Amino acid sequence: MEQTGASHRSLDALAPKVTAAWYIACRVDALGAGPVRSMVHGRPMVVFRGAGGDVSVLVDRCPHRNVPLSFGRVVGDTIQCGYHGWRFDGEGTCTHVPGLPGDAGHPARRATVVPSVVQQGFVWVWPDADVAPHGTPFRFRHLDDPAYTTVCRSLPSPGSVFMVVENALDVPHTAFLHGGLFRDDTAQRREVTCHIRRFHDRAECAFVGERRPSGIAGRLLSPSGGDISHVDRFHLPSITEVEYRLGDENHVLLNGACTPVDDTTTIVHAVVSIRSRLPGWLVRPIVQPLALRIFAQDVEVLRLQVDTLQAFGDATFVSTDIDVLGTHILRLMHRAARGDAGDPEAPPFERTTTMLV
Amino acid sequence: MEQTGASHRSLDALAPKVTAAWYIACRVDALGAGPVRSMVHGRPMVVFRGAGGDVSVLVDRCPHRNVPLSFGRVVGDTIQCGYHGWRFDGEGTCTHVPGLPGDAGHPARRATVVPSVVQQGFVWVWPDADVAPHGTPFRFRHLDDPAYTTVCRSLPSPGSVFMVVENALDVPHTAFLHGGLFRDDTAQRREVTCHIRRFHDRAECAFVGERRPSGIAGRLLSPSGGDISHVDRFHLPSITEVEYRLGDENHVLLNGACTPVDDTTTIVHAVVSIRSRLPGWLVRPIVQPLALRIFAQDVEVLRLQVDTLQAFGDATFVSTDIDVLGTHILRLMHRAARGDAGDPEAPPFERTTTMLV
Amino acid sequence: MEQTGASHRSLDALAPKVTAAWYIACRVDALGAGPVRSMVHGRPMVVFRGAGGDVSVLVDRCPHRNVPLSFGRVVGDTIQCGYHGWRFDGEGTCTHVPGLPGDAGHPARRATVVPSVVQQGFVWVWPDADVAPHGTPFRFRHLDDPAYTTVCRSLPSPGSVFMVVENALDVPHTAFLHGGLFRDDTAQRREVTCHIRRFHDRAECAFVGERRPSGIAGRLLSPSGGDISHVDRFHLPSITEVEYRLGDENHVLLNGACTPVDDTTTIVHAVVSIRSRLPGWLVRPIVQPLALRIFAQDVEVLRLQVDTLQAFGDATFVSTDIDVLGTHILRLMHRAARGDAGDPEAPPFERTTTMLV
Repeated sequence: MEQTGASHRSLDALAPKVTAAWYIACRVDALGAGPVRSMVHGRPMVVFRGAGGDVSVLVDRCPHRNVPLSFGRVVGDTIQCGYHGWRFDGEGTCTHVPGLPGDAGHPARRATVVPSVVQQGFVWVWPDADVAPHGTPFRFRHLDDPAYTTVCRSLPSPGSVFMVVENALDVPHTAFLHGGLFRDDTAQRREVTCHIRRFHDRAECAFVGERRPSGIAGRLLSPSGGDISHVDRFHLPSITEVEYRLGDENHVLLNGACTPVDDTTTIVHAVVSIRSRLPGWLVRPIVQPLALRIFAQDVEVLRLQVDTLQAFGDATFVSTDIDVLGTHILRLMHRAARGDAGDPEAPPFERTTTMLV
Repeated sequence: MEQTGASHRSLDALAPKVTAAWYIACRVDALGAGPVRSMVHGRPMVVFRGAGGDVSVLVDRCPHRNVPLSFGRVVGDTIQCGYHGWRFDGEGTCTHVPGLPGDAGHPARRATVVPSVVQQGFVWVWPDADVAPHGTPFRFRHLDDPAYTTVCRSLPSPGSVFMVVENALDVPHTAFLHGGLFRDDTAQRREVTCHIRRFHDRAECAFVGERRPSGIAGRLLSPSGGDISHVDRFHLPSITEVEYRLGDENHVLLNGACTPVDDTTTIVHAVVSIRSRLPGWLVRPIVQPLALRIFAQDVEVLRLQVDTLQAFGDATFVSTDIDVLGTHILRLMHRAARGDAGDPEAPPFERTTTMLV
Repeated sequence: MEQTGASHRSLDALAPKVTAAWYIACRVDALGAGPVRSMVHGRPMVVFRGAGGDVSVLVDRCPHRNVPLSFGRVVGDTIQCGYHGWRFDGEGTCTHVPGLPGDAGHPARRATVVPSVVQQGFVWVWPDADVAPHGTPFRFRHLDDPAYTTVCRSLPSPGSVFMVVENALDVPHTAFLHGGLFRDDTAQRREVTCHIRRFHDRAECAFVGERRPSGIAGRLLSPSGGDISHVDRFHLPSITEVEYRLGDENHVLLNGACTPVDDTTTIVHAVVSIRSRLPGWLVRPIVQPLALRIFAQDVEVLRLQVDTLQAFGDATFVSTDIDVLGTHILRLMHRAARGDAGDPEAPPFERTTTMLV
């Protein structure tokens, strides 16, 4: 059975490259006075906002002498290279070559445009130069909802998108690696039913019978205890979603939109929306340090995972029934990397298993 | 003649890989509260001592998600991975998977065992996964002898095992690189006869007519001067032995058991046993700083040797009659690396030469 | 047209290797007490001056155990290896092997000689082991002229020789990257005629109608302003020359003799000769900090250029009519790298264009 067999894989198999997709390059807020450099699937990009307010993204290489445009600055609606002062507008057209008599706009001097969309305060880019952009970026469900307190943080992590996503959606390690912070290994465990469904563009696991997590986070969010509703989801190409409902009042939605910098580095753009009996000013200073501590522990273990994979030169991931989402995420990513969108009409793959939580 | 001809070699030729052999992973003393990571021939291992006192060695990779087991801790007679808390006994059997209902011991979940032996306070390992362990580790002759003062130190050095071993058994450089500390380049030299013998599993050179070394070390160990008996030996796969007798009273045996970390790094486990007129409490504080100073000079020159070999991409070692052991060591190591044990019944190769010492 | 078309090139195409040529290894002044290590086209060399005053250059690898000879010291007219004390004279002959009875000069023990010439205080070397040295090193025109104040500095820069040379002879970036220091982007520009000529061994551009540079440097060197005579030259294999004449009194000649360390590092041996109304003691403290500031800005941009080329794995240099010398320099270097000396009798390639300076 797939779930319990060991498998020897190449390292590439743990880093499927889904290039024809939307990824976050940066937050719009990051575009202050100057341009921002961003790297997606190994492709350097420069994001800049012109005087008119439009945000543009170009490949971060001046066509003239191949210095990064992000070394330059924004002049009007153009970005100006810091070496010879060539200027490019948001369409990549060269508008000015200092010292050159006549027109600057020779087509050979074009900078390469990266398709981009601004949505909910994020700049999303399409890194695949060979596939025309299609579809729309992921929407964060409660980011614009005034009933929710939302916190955004962008954090780099070691690991491929798959490794980071599997870690973020993995329940069993929380009781152990994050023991005491969130779940607890020593507490009495309860058998929880796991309903797994894999659609053409996402996979999810709904946990039935789970009690409020025993750690600090659980006690804060649900002082009265009681059963919770908990669903973990993965959305292609790289979005994690952890959703808790504790009674009618408390709703926690944690999204992580992952941007592949390269095969071993991922930036997690975390968007956490919380509706709680507790006011936002109280939730924020408690949840943030806790989340950062958990993230730091995950970064440490992912660093070790990357180093070990590289030292051995292959992977031998063996999975069990409680590794509920990992194999489904990997399957979806590999299919998408091949350019296969899957069949939206097909019924989902379904499976039910149990876990002691 | 082999001894005087220049030879262009690939870098690999200076790093023969004898994998089917016993190497020291660590001292038993190093296994305090937690596991110890060790690398032999590029293979990461974790050494741990269970509650029952048994020492075990596993490949340092959890079969589940390939995090190093040395990131975890010892629980009873098992080592527990720090990521999801899986536990493995000394046989590599998975004994516990937190959260998984039912039996943990699925064969696919086995960790890989590295054959090991505890002897004289050292943990010896057999790094070759394809060849069954045979033979016994090297025994340090006077390590357990109360008539001797013994000091053990484990020190990393640049260089392949061959490069480190040749350096350790090389007499001519001592007068020069270590001038004043041990031997001296400016002193009147004397012609010494060198009897070289190469057996199937070792090579040695006995020096006849050598005076007490003129440097600090010689004066301390033999205040009255006089002739000495001096033999240098190499034991396969990686053990150096330098033996001095100065009169009836003084006997110095310096062993270096070399562990190949990779092609350019070696750990020298030095075991120095001394029987002297001087008491141990007096010998130790004099000999140790001196030995460490000498070792630091050797490390510096081996670092330069490694860097130069890599910069040029090949080696051009030219040898003379006073490079008495190097070529024999290399020949023994290359034969062993091919899996050829040699003929124990064959008479040794013998050669006599002279050196000005 | 070549000048305006974009070209995709491999990185090698921007680092043509002209090995059969004279390059500066170091200044003679640098040979104080000990030997100097120098790297040319990836080949490590040791330069030393014997007791008799002769300067010699050997490949920086002792033939015995491949430690760099530059680790050793000069003894009489020989260089002595720091490991075993072998000595080599300037012809590479081994003159002494400590401890070896009999003659040391076995031909197998020769160190490899690098052809060298001492001229105007510099040690020039011929790095190509397969082509016999011919021709003579470049002469700095006013280095020995008492009417001139000459300053020499050796500075490392990122980039291949071509990249560093093109940058040093590029006029348009001065107004921009070095804006305010030398030329100025905001000042009123004037149309200047550029006469380009490419000979078999050099290329040059004479600028007609150029005003005194508006920055600090120009004002210092020509307080009264007025037209200047300005020629930029490239001499094979790696020499830049920038020449200004401002009236009869002021003559500035800036040479940069570039030594290729490897494909991405170049050492610029700058020789600046100035004849001015101002006395040398006044020119020096003003010009030096300015030149170092300009050089530091060029180093920063060349570092970015190297990093970008390596990140993308190719180059897409697009040139315009005001990139007057770059393509000609590259053409000369590629021809020389193929071993083609060109036709000294052929009339030069000539071209005239205009630039706003």
